[in-house]
This record gives sequence, C-alpha cells and structure tokens, in this order.
Amino acid sequence: MTKTNAGRFFEDYAVGDVITHAVPRTISGGERALYHALYPARGALYSSDEFARACGLPGAPLDDLVTFHTVFGKTVPDVSLNAVANLGYAEGRWLRPVYAGDTLVSQSEVIGVKQNSNGKSGVVWVRTTGRNQRGEEVLSYVRWVMVRKRGEGAAPETVIPDLAGAVAARDLVVPEGLTFANYDFTLAGEPHRLGDYTVGEVIDHVDGVTVEEAEHMLATRLWQNTAKVHFDATNRADGKRLIYGGHVISLARALSFNGLANAQMIVALNGGAHANPCFAGDTVRAWSEVLDLAETDAPGVGAIRLRLVATKGPAGVLRGEDGKYHADVLLDLDYWALMPV
Amino acid sequence: MTKTNAGRFFEDYAVGDVITHAVPRTISGGERALYHALYPARGALYSSDEFARACGLPGAPLDDLVTFHTVFGKTVPDVSLNAVANLGYAEGRWLRPVYAGDTLVSQSEVIGVKQNSNGKSGVVWVRTTGRNQRGEEVLSYVRWVMVRKRGEGAAPETVIPDLAGAVAARDLVVPEGLTFANYDFTLAGEPHRLGDYTVGEVIDHVDGVTVEEAEHMLATRLWQNTAKVHFDATNRADGKRLIYGGHVISLARALSFNGLANAQMIVALNGGAHANPCFAGDTVRAWSEVLDLAETDAPGVGAIRLRLVATKGPAGVLRGEDGKYHADVLLDLDYWALMPV
Amino acid sequence: MTKTNAGRFFEDYAVGDVITHAVPRTISGGERALYHALYPARGALYSSDEFARACGLPGAPLDDLVTFHTVFGKTVPDVSLNAVANLGYAEGRWLRPVYAGDTLVSQSEVIGVKQNSNGKSGVVWVRTTGRNQRGEEVLSYVRWVMVRKRGEGAAPETVIPDLAGAVAARDLVVPEGLTFANYDFTLAGEPHRLGDYTVGEVIDHVDGVTVEEAEHMLATRLWQNTAKVHFDATNRADGKRLIYGGHVISLARALSFNGLANAQMIVALNGGAHANPCFAGDTVRAWSEVLDLAETDAPGVGAIRLRLVATKGPAGVLRGEDGKYHADVLLDLDYWALMPV
Repeated sequence: MTKTNAGRFFEDYAVGDVITHAVPRTISGGERALYHALYPARGALYSSDEFARACGLPGAPLDDLVTFHTVFGKTVPDVSLNAVANLGYAEGRWLRPVYAGDTLVSQSEVIGVKQNSNGKSGVVWVRTTGRNQRGEEVLSYVRWVMVRKRGEGAAPETVIPDLAGAVAARDLVVPEGLTFANYDFTLAGEPHRLGDYTVGEVIDHVDGVTVEEAEHMLATRLWQNTAKVHFDATNRADGKRLIYGGHVISLARALSFNGLANAQMIVALNGGAHANPCFAGDTVRAWSEVLDLAETDAPGVGAIRLRLVATKGPAGVLRGEDGKYHADVLLDLDYWALMPV
Repeated sequence: MTKTNAGRFFEDYAVGDVITHAVPRTISGGERALYHALYPARGALYSSDEFARACGLPGAPLDDLVTFHTVFGKTVPDVSLNAVANLGYAEGRWLRPVYAGDTLVSQSEVIGVKQNSNGKSGVVWVRTTGRNQRGEEVLSYVRWVMVRKRGEGAAPETVIPDLAGAVAARDLVVPEGLTFANYDFTLAGEPHRLGDYTVGEVIDHVDGVTVEEAEHMLATRLWQNTAKVHFDATNRADGKRLIYGGHVISLARALSFNGLANAQMIVALNGGAHANPCFAGDTVRAWSEVLDLAETDAPGVGAIRLRLVATKGPAGVLRGEDGKYHADVLLDLDYWALMPV
Repeated sequence: MTKTNAGRFFEDYAVGDVITHAVPRTISGGERALYHALYPARGALYSSDEFARACGLPGAPLDDLVTFHTVFGKTVPDVSLNAVANLGYAEGRWLRPVYAGDTLVSQSEVIGVKQNSNGKSGVVWVRTTGRNQRGEEVLSYVRWVMVRKRGEGAAPETVIPDLAGAVAARDLVVPEGLTFANYDFTLAGEPHRLGDYTVGEVIDHVDGVTVEEAEHMLATRLWQNTAKVHFDATNRADGKRLIYGGHVISLARALSFNGLANAQMIVALNGGAHANPCFAGDTVRAWSEVLDLAETDAPGVGAIRLRLVATKGPAGVLRGEDGKYHADVLLDLDYWALMPV
C-alpha cells in the first residue's frame, strides 16, 4: 500500500488509453536564461525579442527544445519510469511557439503495444501532445519505449502504429505571422540561406563541450524529468549518472549554430536514436547532413531537413562496417527547421 | 580599522536588540526557474500559474522554501558568521505567499542569550521576520545558534525564551483566498488526500539525488548566504565544502513529492535539526512520518504535520541505540503543510 | 568552402573597419537571478527594485558586469577566436543602465593594428560599443588582443591609438536621476561612505570562493561567449578548461562587497590585466586599493577609483621583485564606481 509512484509496467498500457500527465508548468524568462546558461545556444530568434519581432512574432519564443523537454519531462513518471530503452521518435510537429508566461500540460495516447518474444517486456507506442493554457496544441510527437512486464500474463494483441518515415514538408506548421522577408543575416550570425545548402552536404560544427554532472542534472531537473538514472550515483558502480538524452539533443542543436545559424525554428522531428549513452566527462561535438530542402507559404521562409549527429568522435562518422552506430556516436536526429530562402 | 564585516560575537547580542539585515532582494521568475533546476521540485501549486489560480491564488507563488532561504540568508552576516553550530528552529510560520516581483527584507530580534559553562561561547536565540515591499510579514521563525565569545567578559543574565514545541493547528495561516474545493488531483500528480494519511504512517520517498559542489554553491549564493564554509575549499583538509543545511531541506522536501504530492504549502516549521553534515558526493534520500492531521477554515484545505528526514541511508532509520541521530541522517525537520481534505 | 566561422586573422582587420556583431540578446529577470547564483553578488542597488527606486532609478538595473559580459561575448567570434592573448582594456565607460527587457547589440571599430616583429601575429585594437533596443549606447570600451596571421603578407601600416591612462572623473556618466541623498546604509550593508576611504588604502575582502568547472561554463555560455578554450577539455592535457577572464572579474567584484558594499555602480573601466590563468579548483580571493576619490554633480553621489585584484594568495601582494605579476595573481583591474559621499 505504498503512496509513491512505482510507474507503469507493460500490462498497464492498452491501445486507446489516454493519460493526462501531472504537474502543469509555467515557463518564464528564467527558463530562457537557464537555457542559455546550459547550452551554447545562439539562435537570434530565441535570443532577442527585437529580432523575433522583425520576423513577425510578438517576441522571442522559448527555444523549441524547451517545449520538447517540458512536454517530454511530464510523461516520464507515466511512460518511462520502468523503461528499459527509449527506442525512437516519429511524427513530431511543433504547432505553435511557446512564450514566457505560457503554461504547458502534456497528454499521451497509447497507440501501439507489442510484447517481446521473451515475455518479460514489451514495446509501447504513445502519441504525446503538449498544450498551452488556452488548450492550443504546441507540440505533438510519437515515441516508443521498451517497458518491463510486471507479471507473466498473456500478451495483448499486437498493434503497431503506421508511422511516417518523415513529416512531409507540406505538413510543417509555420508559426502564424512568421516572415523572413526582412531577415537580418548580419545579426543572425551567418550569410547562408536555404539556397546555399545542398542535399547531401555535411557540416562539421567544429566546437566541442565537455559535460559536467552538475550541468546535466540542473537541466534535467529543470524539465521536471524525474528518471532516477539521471540523478542517483549509487545506480552504477562507477558513480556516473546516465545523461538525459534530451540534454545531448540540446547540446548538439546549440553547437550546430556554427554552420547552421539560420536554421532558426525546429518544426518537425522525423526520427531519432540515442545511439550510445552519454556521461559526464564526455566532450560532445556535432555534425549535420542536409537531407532535404523545401518551400513554405510564408514570406521568405523555407525549410531544411537535417540529420543532426552528436558524437565524441570526428564529423561524418556514423556507423561501423557492421551497420551499427559507431561507439562515439551519441545521437542521430532527423528534423526539419525553418530557414530564410 | 578594517572595513570588512568580522561578524558578531556572543557579547554583541543583548536581549531586546533588533537587527535590520542588509540587502533587500527582489525575487523574479528567474529565481523560480532556478529553484526547479536546483531541486526536483514538482508541487503543482508552485509550478503552474493556472493551477494556482484554480486554487484561488493570483498566480503561482515562489516555493515557500525560497522565502525561507532568502529571509534566512540575510541573517547570516549578522547572526551566524561566527556561529559554531546552528542548534534549532521553532515557531516558524509562513504568513503570506511571495510572488515574482516581491522584494524581501529581514529583521531579527534577540530573544535569548545563555553563556556556556566553558566561558568561551554562548547560545543566542533570535526571532527573524521577513517582510515584503508593503511591510507585510511573510515569514517569522526562531532559531538559535552557538556563537563564539570575543573576549573573557562576564556572562550576561541568562534568558531562555519559552518556545512552543509545535505551532498549534489553530495558529496556522492559510493564504487569503486559498481553496482546494476544485483541486485537480490528476494534474497535481497523486490521488492521496488528507484522509488517506494516518498518524504514524511512514512514507519512503524512494528517489535519491547525488549532490555536486557546483549545485549547492549556486543555490547558497542565490539566497545571498555568505557563510564561507560553503564556498572555500581551503577551509578543510579534504577540500570539501560544508553544504548549507537549507540545501538539504529543499532537496528532501522536493524528493517528498513522491508520496506527498498534495502536501502543497508549507505553513509552519515546528522544529528541525541538521543531524549530520552533508558533503558533495552524498546521495540524499528522504522519508516522512505523519505526525498530525488537522482541519482549517478554508474550503477543502486541511493540514498535515510531517517529520521530514533526509538521509544517506534507508527510510525509517532515525536514531541509534544511544539515542543519537544515526550517522546517515542529515536532517530531521518537523513542519505543517496544507493538503486537500 | 566551409560554412563554419573560422574567425578573423590579423590580415582581416583594417583601421576604420566597423564590425556589427551577431546575435542580439534580450536580458530578463532570469539573467539577474543567474548572476546571483553564479557570483556572491550583494550590491543592494542590483538586488532590490525598492532600493534602486529610493536611489532615483526606475528599478534595479542588471549588474554592470552583465552588460559588460553580454556586450563582450558578442565580440568573441569576430575579435578573439584566433586571439593568442587578451592584452588590455582602456577607456571603458558605462553610459546607461540596462534593465530587464532590454535587448543588447554590439559593434566594434578597429582603431589600431601593429604587426609583431616575428611576422606571425599582430596586435589589434577595437573600440566596442553596446547599444540597447532604442539604439542608446550602454557601454563603450577599448580592448586589444594579439591575433595570429593567416599568411605571410606584408605588414600593414602601424596605427597605435592614443588611449587615456584612466577615464577622467569629469567624464564619468552618472545615470539619469540617480541620487544617494536618502541612501540607506543599513540596507546597503555597510556604513562606509566616500569620505571614509583614503587614497592608498588597501582592503582585504577576506572571503574566498573555490571555482568549479560547471559554474564557469554556465556563466560563460550565459554571455554567449563561444571561445572553445572555456568548454572543451580535450584542448589541454590535464583536461582543464581555461576560465573566461570575465568570470574572475565578476567573482572578485562580488567578493569586494565585504568592505566596499557602497561602491555601487561601475561607471568606468580604466584598465585591466588577466595576470595569470584561472582554473577550476582555484580558490579566488580579492583585495582592493583605493586609487582616487572624486565628486559628481548628482545628489550625494561621489566616485571612487579602485584597483581590484583577484588572487589565489594573500591580500596586498601584486608583483614580484622582477616587476612581474606574482603567480597567485589572476586579475588586476582599475575601475571607477559610484559611492555615497
């Protein structure tokens, strides 16, 4: 008769279940400042109210990954407390910017279950939606995790959702009012526009950041992500704490400013894999590959589809001869960003 | 003729003295964000303006421990710079929530002195009051510390204040307008209401957080607490810095969300002991014991009196056979919180 | 054909060039809170809106060093990415306080170049100006750095700017409306006014702070300073990261509260040298020497010129018998601050 949350097990998920996640969160300028302290983020649209207004927004939104981490963090106690592995992401779409003063809540619908052949665990797919205080959707994405079974009951009927390999360019949501018609490339930091990038191009973002325990714990707490592996050094013999995968996403995205300063807003998450665990002491570097280029209906606004790789090793290396991720690779992320044409 | 503050010694305190502490402090959303980064705090009332409004408040207040740390921090240069030990707390009452934009000041009255038999130190009792920019009291508490004597002068007349063993339930101040009549247990994170708890019940909060030097120093500076033992590694042979006791209070309180998510507002501090020092590398866990349950006049609002124990060891262990605190125990705190009935 | 910023080399600077630096930055209460978490800052004017209003300002400005770090950070990708050394500062003047909500941009004019006799590097002087969203100047200063040459081209004509040894007292800009006529010395923390200080007086600020890697990286990122030596542990065999010199400036200035609590606003930077590098694990202490005292036209407002020294060693020690900075000395800064007369 414990009052603490033991988390859900595989048996606790049924397709069609809707879970309202706890602890709504109001975001302020404090979270924006902390994001700048935690990551080397320099995107002008997120750094400057003036720059954002010149792009047709009411002010600088919070970084799109603040939205992602906040919405994601709320799902952890209900979705991944007993997760063995975070397997993938799909169909992520940012639907509306988040501004200081907004309050975010998260809800997930179970859209797939598949028991593993060992009978001890299974895969659960959820579609998570973040909403603001007006009930407007700000983010929607699918993720799937492997979760332990509590007991030895029969397997549920397998349901594997039909997920898009990538969000189609025509389904990208450009924030209302956004225009890059008068985009200031000098203030943004680089001259490169959409037309300067070519599909297949690889960009080495050059810089590296060595991660400290204090930093990733500050970040992970900030998103109210409570997974104990990130905080409790007694979980491992070496005393290290597993770094929240989202911390690596934000680090890599921030590092990618150097070469992709004008890839301003993240509008879709097509897929992603946390290829290897990241620990304090690792020096994280990043490289990107241009996967696609597209137009949008907004003035001057194009879209660039990018593979973003976080690595402890050299740029351009992704997989070994065996087809598996190289041991240096931490993250392989596929996303769409908006960029001036 | 030094211009720096050497702190007060035992001789410098006389019963009836009133000390106005320096450096008023305006609190903003930045402090709220930092509190979430420093501690795994998830109380919905402090996380969400919307949730707080649904409970009758104008918005989310700052965590009650932000108020405590800010008011306390200001007293350090005047009360505990030469303190040998922080001996206890009593009669702590939160009298009004603190919101972003409020400016806090602290004042202390000396209410007791007792020289030790060795003639080299003495105990000083102060009642400290925190006020906002309108002069309204936000917090009042008594603490007593052992302070070194400067010289060998005669002992002052002993005055030991008559302190309540606990704040009576009828003396708890419920914030104006607070109602839990429409309390959303789903968004708050747990279904347990006051009636689900029984006196004597022990709750193991399960999670643990390993503390880093950078984290506790960031926190302690944030409260403008200047005690050098927290910052200067050259004070100890092992280079460790003694962690501010209030950091452990906030860590334990935040961890107690898991099992006490609805113990929303701290309204009284009945007593407390920093049983053993805490250092970086320690993994802090928490457990609670229900000490009392009470009603209030506010709609749907009850009060729960809790013992909150921070420990490096297992839940439920407090003292050894010798009656002394177990070496693992860091904190033994006795407080009242408001909870939906 | 890389898209990343390789930084400028000595050949890329010509006297008269004007560089608009990228990434404007909006400052909020979050940056103020973080400043208090990162440094033991206790200046009442920066801590309390109420105190600042009593001094004639509309509210508490951001610490003057937040302005400095933000304006400086923007120059790094254009000025010091390939710098061998940061040689000096001169003619720094704070021209207007910065408040939460302000957006800062930086611009630099090249005012001097001198190739070194080895033909492999040269010294570049720039005058950097920070402006707010209304185009008003908030800060102007000169710094000079030694920068590598890319190739072996001919040396440009040497231009060495004529720089003042110190900003004259009559050129100090007192913020509009500032008055210390009703200054509250109790709330400010110390009784010492301008008349209590004498030229030549040395003040040992007593306290020390041991620095952690996580702290200086959080700070340096917050100012969007991207110099890789501060973040990438693989740059040095010992895995240490060189601490941004500005972090040491802020630490020392904050420590100087103890003895200089009423040296409220920094209005000029006369000069400064980062005497030795600072690394995590160092315990930073500070001492000051009074260099000059002056009046201003504002009610009750005087000015004090101070040498601020950050050191790992004892107060008062600056140079060895060889005239070089003692190995313990980290910083030797010469600045003007406003103080009640």
